[in-house]
Amino acid sequence: MPFELTKKFIEDIRLSIEKNDRDVARKLMDELHAADIAEIYDELNIEEAKFLYLLLDSETAADVIAELDEDDISKFLKVLPSRLVAKQFIEEMDSDDAADAIGALDEEKQEEILSHIEDIEQAGDIVDLMSYDEDSAGGLMAKELIKVNENWTLTTCLREMRKQAEEIDEIYYVYVVDNDEKLLGTVSLKKMLLSDNKEKVKDIANTEIISVKTDASSEEVAAIMDKYDLVALPVIDSIGRLLGRITIDDVVDIIREEAEKDYQMASGISEDVESSDSVWILTRARIPWLLIGLLGGVLVSKVIGIYELDLGTYPEMAFFIPLIAAMGGNVGVQSSAIIVQGLANNTLGIGSTYHKLLKELSVAIVNGFILSGLIFIYNSFVSDSFALTLTVSIALFSVIIFASLFGTFIPLFLDKAKIDPALATGPFITTLNDIMGLFIYLMIGRILYGIL
Amino acid sequence: MPFELTKKFIEDIRLSIEKNDRDVARKLMDELHAADIAEIYDELNIEEAKFLYLLLDSETAADVIAELDEDDISKFLKVLPSRLVAKQFIEEMDSDDAADAIGALDEEKQEEILSHIEDIEQAGDIVDLMSYDEDSAGGLMAKELIKVNENWTLTTCLREMRKQAEEIDEIYYVYVVDNDEKLLGTVSLKKMLLSDNKEKVKDIANTEIISVKTDASSEEVAAIMDKYDLVALPVIDSIGRLLGRITIDDVVDIIREEAEKDYQMASGISEDVESSDSVWILTRARIPWLLIGLLGGVLVSKVIGIYELDLGTYPEMAFFIPLIAAMGGNVGVQSSAIIVQGLANNTLGIGSTYHKLLKELSVAIVNGFILSGLIFIYNSFVSDSFALTLTVSIALFSVIIFASLFGTFIPLFLDKAKIDPALATGPFITTLNDIMGLFIYLMIGRILYGIL
Repeated sequence: MPFELTKKFIEDIRLSIEKNDRDVARKLMDELHAADIAEIYDELNIEEAKFLYLLLDSETAADVIAELDEDDISKFLKVLPSRLVAKQFIEEMDSDDAADAIGALDEEKQEEILSHIEDIEQAGDIVDLMSYDEDSAGGLMAKELIKVNENWTLTTCLREMRKQAEEIDEIYYVYVVDNDEKLLGTVSLKKMLLSDNKEKVKDIANTEIISVKTDASSEEVAAIMDKYDLVALPVIDSIGRLLGRITIDDVVDIIREEAEKDYQMASGISEDVESSDSVWILTRARIPWLLIGLLGGVLVSKVIGIYELDLGTYPEMAFFIPLIAAMGGNVGVQSSAIIVQGLANNTLGIGSTYHKLLKELSVAIVNGFILSGLIFIYNSFVSDSFALTLTVSIALFSVIIFASLFGTFIPLFLDKAKIDPALATGPFITTLNDIMGLFIYLMIGRILYGIL
Repeated sequence: MPFELTKKFIEDIRLSIEKNDRDVARKLMDELHAADIAEIYDELNIEEAKFLYLLLDSETAADVIAELDEDDISKFLKVLPSRLVAKQFIEEMDSDDAADAIGALDEEKQEEILSHIEDIEQAGDIVDLMSYDEDSAGGLMAKELIKVNENWTLTTCLREMRKQAEEIDEIYYVYVVDNDEKLLGTVSLKKMLLSDNKEKVKDIANTEIISVKTDASSEEVAAIMDKYDLVALPVIDSIGRLLGRITIDDVVDIIREEAEKDYQMASGISEDVESSDSVWILTRARIPWLLIGLLGGVLVSKVIGIYELDLGTYPEMAFFIPLIAAMGGNVGVQSSAIIVQGLANNTLGIGSTYHKLLKELSVAIVNGFILSGLIFIYNSFVSDSFALTLTVSIALFSVIIFASLFGTFIPLFLDKAKIDPALATGPFITTLNDIMGLFIYLMIGRILYGIL
């Protein structure tokens, strides 16, 4: 059953570290998975974590490092001697994790660790992987995979697989290449189990295989693996040679982070932050959108300023300023969120923008009638001014229509212009709708108060 | 290389359907993956989709159905004869997909299809799976898996695996059970490749295995598979017998949907909708939060109403009403988004609420000083009224502090009370901050205009 981290457990671990009691600490961590130990590290300071680390066997130690955040890895590897890192961590790690871990360090430390790796081929693999952009297929892939030649018989194949398997944790697919190392397909373990040992690999290989080039973006990789339900995706170079493979566990993080990024942007947070980050980082992530909001607020004050005389005469007009602004913001955020998620998931289909705006307009008209109807009834009862009653309802209706179309159009437009449509959600669209909404409201008010 | 759906392609397919040209249609779909064909179905009407479906071989047809949305499955299966569905789809499908597909139909159709399934064991599996809650481990699992007895030798093991493998697409793990069918562990294919055929399964099995019971929630399943980087997770009954396994591809969708759900809630959308849903569904998903926003706006109008006389005397106070309201909303949404994501990802750590509020307070003070400082400078230049200048700055500072604490505390509180903390984000927190923010603003204004 999965382990659950408790305050009690952290206290016990801390106590054992304080008392320098290796046996108790070792026993506490004994049954734990590397992911659990990584979780414990998050709660400890660097010296405490180091104490625990020195109790782990190399394989677990390597797995724990692979589970840590990039920031934590670099902090942690800095306090350990390079020779130890090279021996215990890097040589036990999969090449992609090793490249990520070393990539998180400064150059001097990188070179020091690399010089301590004895297996020159492994050091070469790591250096190769570090050369790719972190957010590309090349940056995500690991070099460890099982590949067999198309001309081998199953017997040869099994013998060679045995050799290759020693370096690999899990076998998901066995890749088939030709004499030039070009990727031809896969052969499933199931087929191997069911086929005669004398058959040739090429006769049982599945050649309908999906692969990506090293420069494919991590978003593309995630979308492909998600759509085709792949557990591993092979990566090829520009002439089709097999270089590595990306496993689904790395991609799950990307899928989640992407969905979260849209949410963060919609919430006005410009960097990927966690509540455990420093006050400085949290402020830096939050202030840009707040400044935009402030600027928007100042512009809105200018718009209202135009109508200062009207407000002096009819101060009750001010009562509904926040309602109009808020509803414009709410409707705009709803509309844009649906589009942004649709774009992210590729579920918008290939219909025209015109069609989507028309659909959104229908929804807006229904919502607009309901909401402005309700506020009309409310104001008919509580307000003495029919001009106000009519102004609020007409303005609310107009603002809902306007904000819906705006919230639909802007992200679609940004996407066509190759700008992240998530930018359109959150404070940006709220602010823009505030300005337009109040302009509409006050203008309608001036006209109706003039007539009625 | 992955297929990309274009308008041109849909037009070609449509044309071939119109002309009743099976050969062209078949050729167009020839190289396509089931996921691609499912994407095409989304663009077609039910009769067109049916035409294409009848051209597919049973296995592809089954895979396509497994890729469709629940709504689309039920629409589609309704127009096909039950006998055909039972034969061509269900008998080719994995049990979890089959249970989902049949579960999407009405009871009468369900029974009809089940009665046409010849393999009584498979029909039984499907009925078993349908009895579990859709959002539980039981509802997610498939019955297809490879299991071996701990007492078998590797030779027996391989022979039995060959038999079992016929029904299974991919082998990720081989599960080891005892004579009572209780799950003991896994044996990796790698170990099998590397071990002597006379060895017993139990001697090479890995017994450190993570499993879940059938009633575990889909969120728990997703969190466990994500944390421990699992490709498949075995499901056991209450006495530990192996019932099925959940594969990562089903869980990827859950992980994404969960992250998206938080975003949707923050955007004021109460149901999982897509832009392709009907106007009615879209309206239903959006109106609840808009009604809350409307109610909030009315309450705000009451708060402002209290200060009607002040606004008549100092109409310039109205200029900054939207700014104060918007900034309160923005800050509150930022704070709550960080907490909601932290709760969802389990990255908040086990620190106290008090600690988190203190951290948030620090961020708020920094942001508050910067923003209210800027607006103070701005108003010093453009406003004649020092009372207004001071009121706006002091109110903005107070609102930022208040909204931050509020945005942090409310989701933490809801989480402790076992209510979805995502409820706290979006229109709810914005509205609440609007009310409190304007109350603070107008109160400070009254005091300062009185003094200065």
